[in-house]
Amino acid sequence: MVFVTRRETFSSAHRLFNPQLSANENLELFGKCSNERWHGHNYVLHVTVKGEINPQTGMVINLKTLSAIIKNHVISQLDHQNLNEEVPFLQGKITTSENIAIGIWNVLQPLVNQAGAQMHCVKLAETENSYVEYFG
Amino acid sequence: MVFVTRRETFSSAHRLFNPQLSANENLELFGKCSNERWHGHNYVLHVTVKGEINPQTGMVINLKTLSAIIKNHVISQLDHQNLNEEVPFLQGKITTSENIAIGIWNVLQPLVNQAGAQMHCVKLAETENSYVEYFG
Amino acid sequence: MVFVTRRETFSSAHRLFNPQLSANENLELFGKCSNERWHGHNYVLHVTVKGEINPQTGMVINLKTLSAIIKNHVISQLDHQNLNEEVPFLQGKITTSENIAIGIWNVLQPLVNQAGAQMHCVKLAETENSYVEYFG
Amino acid sequence: MVFVTRRETFSSAHRLFNPQLSANENLELFGKCSNERWHGHNYVLHVTVKGEINPQTGMVINLKTLSAIIKNHVISQLDHQNLNEEVPFLQGKITTSENIAIGIWNVLQPLVNQAGAQMHCVKLAETENSYVEYFG
Amino acid sequence: MVFVTRRETFSSAHRLFNPQLSANENLELFGKCSNERWHGHNYVLHVTVKGEINPQTGMVINLKTLSAIIKNHVISQLDHQNLNEEVPFLQGKITTSENIAIGIWNVLQPLVNQAGAQMHCVKLAETENSYVEYFG
Amino acid sequence: MVFVTRRETFSSAHRLFNPQLSANENLELFGKCSNERWHGHNYVLHVTVKGEINPQTGMVINLKTLSAIIKNHVISQLDHQNLNEEVPFLQGKITTSENIAIGIWNVLQPLVNQAGAQMHCVKLAETENSYVEYFG
Repeated sequence: MVFVTRRETFSSAHRLFNPQLSANENLELFGKCSNERWHGHNYVLHVTVKGEINPQTGMVINLKTLSAIIKNHVISQLDHQNLNEEVPFLQGKITTSENIAIGIWNVLQPLVNQAGAQMHCVKLAETENSYVEYFG
Repeated sequence: MVFVTRRETFSSAHRLFNPQLSANENLELFGKCSNERWHGHNYVLHVTVKGEINPQTGMVINLKTLSAIIKNHVISQLDHQNLNEEVPFLQGKITTSENIAIGIWNVLQPLVNQAGAQMHCVKLAETENSYVEYFG
Repeated sequence: MVFVTRRETFSSAHRLFNPQLSANENLELFGKCSNERWHGHNYVLHVTVKGEINPQTGMVINLKTLSAIIKNHVISQLDHQNLNEEVPFLQGKITTSENIAIGIWNVLQPLVNQAGAQMHCVKLAETENSYVEYFG
Repeated sequence: MVFVTRRETFSSAHRLFNPQLSANENLELFGKCSNERWHGHNYVLHVTVKGEINPQTGMVINLKTLSAIIKNHVISQLDHQNLNEEVPFLQGKITTSENIAIGIWNVLQPLVNQAGAQMHCVKLAETENSYVEYFG
Repeated sequence: MVFVTRRETFSSAHRLFNPQLSANENLELFGKCSNERWHGHNYVLHVTVKGEINPQTGMVINLKTLSAIIKNHVISQLDHQNLNEEVPFLQGKITTSENIAIGIWNVLQPLVNQAGAQMHCVKLAETENSYVEYFG
Repeated sequence: MVFVTRRETFSSAHRLFNPQLSANENLELFGKCSNERWHGHNYVLHVTVKGEINPQTGMVINLKTLSAIIKNHVISQLDHQNLNEEVPFLQGKITTSENIAIGIWNVLQPLVNQAGAQMHCVKLAETENSYVEYFG
């Protein structure tokens, strides 16, 4: 079994906000990340899949296939969008990196399986100093 | 003469939009960067100043001083803000990297001079694949 | 379960030296790293914790909390210090990356538990070409 | 148990090509990577080994030893070479990152064991946007 | 005047070889870089242009335009190609970074001028430890 | 004229200290950087030289030559050393990046000239967030 990772990026606006809490509670909990006029990030996404090597290709999965899956089904939904308002798979979620990573996993899992590999990890970095990882 | 550079970062929302043009013209000109619900970036800022070395300190400028000037007067205005709506020195400007860099220069120049050095360059990277430089 | 990583840096002096060996044996074992007048590094530290997502915050742990724990209890002890002489949790240890990483883990584990998460990994890079990882 | 990683690089030419398929099938499968006049990469290799800390050295393995093993037995075979034509351990293999990583593991495993540690992972990045990992 | 830089990458095979010298002279001069079976690199290209800001767009040049010029006229000729054998603008040249950078400048200059900006610098990095810059 | 840059690194201990000032004045001026038991950094050095391309080699200067000059005359004096106590060309200097960069320039200039090129810039980064440049 070999693990293959593809890196992609997207740039989005968001804010951290729990609608069940007051404005003051949101501010206390999330600080400047709750700014109601939004802020944004260049997110860096690493998608790791695993599988056996196909002897005909020498590959677990064609990186062009993996990249196309990620771009067509994830990046196209997130890039240059407002994560709180414009992304169907994040509706009703607080747009923390944790929730975005889980949402990305759920979009990708069936598509990666169809392409003959298994999901291993979604790693999402919001800044150069922090990232989350989800293994399903 | 020696050149000294300090690197700082900020994360902001913005959109590219010229209010004198129609929605369609903005879309044609700026593409997805004109999305009315905003997007955002982790901006990376390099501020370069120049001067003679002070023989008492061995420095052109104390990097703590330079960093404090940048943080207190620039980062505090930009970080986790909406560049189109919340930044006084960008009011009425299209928030391209070019205009942000010039605005930063104008804020910093008198403060750097007061600290005994001269501005040389503001370099601003919006993504890992592009940046602008302004030399006054 | 989601994994959350915070990156911090510190700059310190150290030398590799085993007091139970002779100067020649130290030199043979550690080479220039045993220089008695010290050398130093910009260390890069990644602390990874894990836990369930808190539904009220959408987070495993608030990154500000995690960063404050690391800065107040680890970076404050290591940054701009001599690792051999000035760090209580390294007293009597050879200051290899392996031993520093274990020391950092031991400082952080109870504090991360109090903050509601579990330690997963301490990764410590001494140079751009090497790093160690400790999982407890 | 602590994990220790050494990073090395090499620059090589290769092409993706399965001799059991026609030129058209190779082109369809591998695209421009099958160009018969070759292309090349700056490969980045991370070798991770694991073991107990030796109390005399404070180390799992001396990084100089690990680096020498990798350079003398792997980099020397790959750097500034044609991976399809000049590397004994890749003869008859499609030179995908997956197969190169497995080949590197097989070369290193006995040598790392002789040095008193165990192989944990070979990570090989062909570009800044993709990498593979093999754990044996 | 503002300077705008776009970063692009390409992966190519090449060798350093002067046909007017003997095989031994080439080996002495270029070392392993003269290997007749080729090697290769992930080249990183920075193209810097300069100009006045267009008040309608807030830009010196639309980065999409600049990126398209570089991709359609430079990257398409270099990526996954053999620089010695397949690149018209390098025919008869020793494929050092110096000569590649000058060749790229000559291709781009008229196109950048047509797009309303002026060329300032072509920076080309062959490895993470070396690069050349050409200013025309 | 083409500009060629070589990147090298060194890891050293130092402290910022002006012997003509009191301990308190040093502390006020340099803060934790004046710690009398030292701290250290992984310094990153970029040396840029310029010249005409030699038509026989296609190069301004052979990068192996430039790297050897830097390693043999600069890195060998600085790496794993105490910059305040063990480096002849820094004796009597406050070991700021500014003074180290000028010292490196003075060592390299005659050697680069002998090798047929001219010095253009010494860039020295003490941390990932700051660097100095000296152009002679």
